[in-house]
Amino acid sequence: MITSINQSPLYPIANPKSIVFFGASNNYSAMGTSILNAILSDGFEGTLYPVHPREKTVLNLPAYASVDDIPTLPDMAFIVLPTKIVAQTLKAIGEKGIRHAVIVSAGFNEVGGKGEERQKQLQKIAGQYNIRFTGPNCIGVVNSHLRLNATFLPSEGKTGFIGMASQSGSFITQMFSYLNNRYGQGFSTGFSLGNEANIDMVDCIEYLGACPNTRVIALYIESIRQGQKFIDIARRVSLHKPIVAFYVGGSETGKRACLSHTGSLAGPDQLYNGVFRQTGIIRASSIEELFDFCYVLGSCPLPVGNKLIIQTHSGGPGAAAADACERAGCELPLPSPETLEKLAPFVPHTGSANNPIDLTYTKNPLDFFHGIPKVLLEEKGADGMLIYFLATAGMIHTALTSMGVPDDEIDTQIQNIVDTQCQSIAALVKTHGKPIVGFSFLTRENPFVTSLQDRGVPVLPSPERAAKAFGAMVDYTRLRKKISQQTD
Amino acid sequence: MITSINQSPLYPIANPKSIVFFGASNNYSAMGTSILNAILSDGFEGTLYPVHPREKTVLNLPAYASVDDIPTLPDMAFIVLPTKIVAQTLKAIGEKGIRHAVIVSAGFNEVGGKGEERQKQLQKIAGQYNIRFTGPNCIGVVNSHLRLNATFLPSEGKTGFIGMASQSGSFITQMFSYLNNRYGQGFSTGFSLGNEANIDMVDCIEYLGACPNTRVIALYIESIRQGQKFIDIARRVSLHKPIVAFYVGGSETGKRACLSHTGSLAGPDQLYNGVFRQTGIIRASSIEELFDFCYVLGSCPLPVGNKLIIQTHSGGPGAAAADACERAGCELPLPSPETLEKLAPFVPHTGSANNPIDLTYTKNPLDFFHGIPKVLLEEKGADGMLIYFLATAGMIHTALTSMGVPDDEIDTQIQNIVDTQCQSIAALVKTHGKPIVGFSFLTRENPFVTSLQDRGVPVLPSPERAAKAFGAMVDYTRLRKKISQQTD
Repeated sequence: MITSINQSPLYPIANPKSIVFFGASNNYSAMGTSILNAILSDGFEGTLYPVHPREKTVLNLPAYASVDDIPTLPDMAFIVLPTKIVAQTLKAIGEKGIRHAVIVSAGFNEVGGKGEERQKQLQKIAGQYNIRFTGPNCIGVVNSHLRLNATFLPSEGKTGFIGMASQSGSFITQMFSYLNNRYGQGFSTGFSLGNEANIDMVDCIEYLGACPNTRVIALYIESIRQGQKFIDIARRVSLHKPIVAFYVGGSETGKRACLSHTGSLAGPDQLYNGVFRQTGIIRASSIEELFDFCYVLGSCPLPVGNKLIIQTHSGGPGAAAADACERAGCELPLPSPETLEKLAPFVPHTGSANNPIDLTYTKNPLDFFHGIPKVLLEEKGADGMLIYFLATAGMIHTALTSMGVPDDEIDTQIQNIVDTQCQSIAALVKTHGKPIVGFSFLTRENPFVTSLQDRGVPVLPSPERAAKAFGAMVDYTRLRKKISQQTD
Repeated sequence: MITSINQSPLYPIANPKSIVFFGASNNYSAMGTSILNAILSDGFEGTLYPVHPREKTVLNLPAYASVDDIPTLPDMAFIVLPTKIVAQTLKAIGEKGIRHAVIVSAGFNEVGGKGEERQKQLQKIAGQYNIRFTGPNCIGVVNSHLRLNATFLPSEGKTGFIGMASQSGSFITQMFSYLNNRYGQGFSTGFSLGNEANIDMVDCIEYLGACPNTRVIALYIESIRQGQKFIDIARRVSLHKPIVAFYVGGSETGKRACLSHTGSLAGPDQLYNGVFRQTGIIRASSIEELFDFCYVLGSCPLPVGNKLIIQTHSGGPGAAAADACERAGCELPLPSPETLEKLAPFVPHTGSANNPIDLTYTKNPLDFFHGIPKVLLEEKGADGMLIYFLATAGMIHTALTSMGVPDDEIDTQIQNIVDTQCQSIAALVKTHGKPIVGFSFLTRENPFVTSLQDRGVPVLPSPERAAKAFGAMVDYTRLRKKISQQTD
């Protein structure tokens, strides 16, 4: 297994200083143009060499009639050409001495018949020239820390800690705004794999396992092509970095869709569940879960065990979280007498300290962000917490107005209050080394949600999703321990 | 069963012309003040009579020292007073002749012991004076079509078609922005039930079943108190209006949380599943599902069967939807030869017509919104569709710029294009009477999502959620048919 990303064949693909680009023109409706445009608008600082048979410039960059005309040796080639000229282009870059490529063009294994022959031809050429490539039929690659976004849509330049390897490019390029809007997150590095004719998912797991910007690895899987190699590498990577997988081919219908999509042969759920358990990979049952789990696993210290306390000031969301926690394999211990004693001053007579700790209506809102979670994190019988957040800027606005704060000071005061309270929660997590997962029906339009998320305290959009994500952390801790014992 | 809402004891509570309000003051941190403030800021047009022992005005309304001083007979009383004076207040409104009340005050059955005695006392007084009331320990009531929002938070005045009866007030008052942000929806009428000492969930189902603004009924259930009555009424209502329930007490932990929250005794999952099946109620497994299902059931014509076609231009989201559809009990038929022939001009060689119909890259974007779904809705072997939406305003912007459209015309042209395309989808649904459920990772910040949703085409935030919601429609169609046959 590699110990540094520059030992990986993916290194020049994710960290190129220069790219030769085939298939962009000045016609904005062309796929290649969209990708080159995304690279430019995200601010990539390396050199781009568009190749075009006729144009002198492409998107205002000097264009070259052929790869041979390029004065230097680019780190990699990006190919978005019509199917029938892909092979000859791969040969041309091989002749030039380029050893790395991304092939976006489709029309290979995924269409069957002649497509399969065409794919074999690409593999043969790559073998002759020692070229390593991703694709064909992929979307591209993104490395947010280098401002490299060689995919279909602009990313808005958001960096993040989720490393992704995907057998569907959509789950990279179409998730930029999703991750940003929901969690204020982004991809550290993302690889779209397509048909995996050369570089495959195992190479990506190895790369992302060694990538210093990646805290957690997300996989979108339609089928695993090299079972044993996958198991070996994933087992070793998951010992030090969590891996979450969404596997889509488990149903008959899913299987058929995968075959049409990337020409992959999917297997039954049970087989994949076995592989995931053996390798310490957490399986997500939906795309939302995939990213929820990654977000929380990348944000929190891991819980030692499965016991948690729920803090709420609304009974319903607290009860929904409690129910979901048990279903996710977690336990809600009753607080110890010592904790109950320390809690007593905070819990009104309408509230409950039975876990969920339901404060109903707290007199001093700051207690909710400091005094109460502090007591609950000190509880020796619990390994972490869920906290429900419902406060809005409007509530503080009303309170400040009634206290006579002048209008022109209110916004600043609201932000100060929000930041102080959220900072307090973030500091508690650090001090106690136990995870806190927040949940709220509010979005990043709410200043508490944004402030908590931006301070590394994950906030998920529902009690059930928070409970399941906590359960994923518990599962990962358990699996990792088991694998670690087997490996010793 | 009632045939009109004005036969219900809830009618004066949800449609009051005048309210006497106990427990509001000029102190903004008091719960009562927050509720009166929400009523005022949402623009209720009826008369409000705050009662306060000392203040002359409350939130700028003339205040009365006692209910006896009010010159007329208010339609209902709203009580947010300290626990120990609730009983005497209920008696006082009874003496005055008021027959309807909402009791928000807590400290009754949910705290056990003396609280249970206090609740019995309320029931006794209500019996003496023929008072019907919701609560205690509830949040209030909302009727968006009357701009009545007697709950804890301002609602932003959004109307909608979801009727809600909830054993947790949070799932009304804290869902206003949730429903608005996700679906552009709101509650038609919402009842927070609290401890159900008098009016209970069955009364609400009956009311909402007859409510002309309510297209679908959402229930948040911690326990059903009157089993047989519930079954009788729900069975009759669900024959003409879908009911979706989220039941939280099925796990041991959930059960304990419910007991602390509203003093309710929850039962095992199997028991509740049986009740739901018998009554035609669709069970949701999370709060998100509860509202997803309601939103889709309230928006779409019902599918005749479980066969659907998925239209996408991204393989991954298509495959994820396909896999989730099978898991949700739906089938994806292969299109008939006739349909395939009609589709051929629209599907590029990189695409697939195997269902999912994956267009990869369509030349003419309008086809995606008209030509293709038209062909697919005409398919006799399918009962409805899922469609994946990924287009952004930015994409159209780029295209228009490259076509030389002047900058100052672009925004208007984008909106026109979006509206024309979305209107086209909405019209197809009407013409063919088959449901289309959209899904997208984009939010209402995206003009397509907003335009589709505002035209009655539901768009959910992930393939799995769209598939499950379609499955909920299929389940409802099936259950309703079965119950209807049993009833004949």
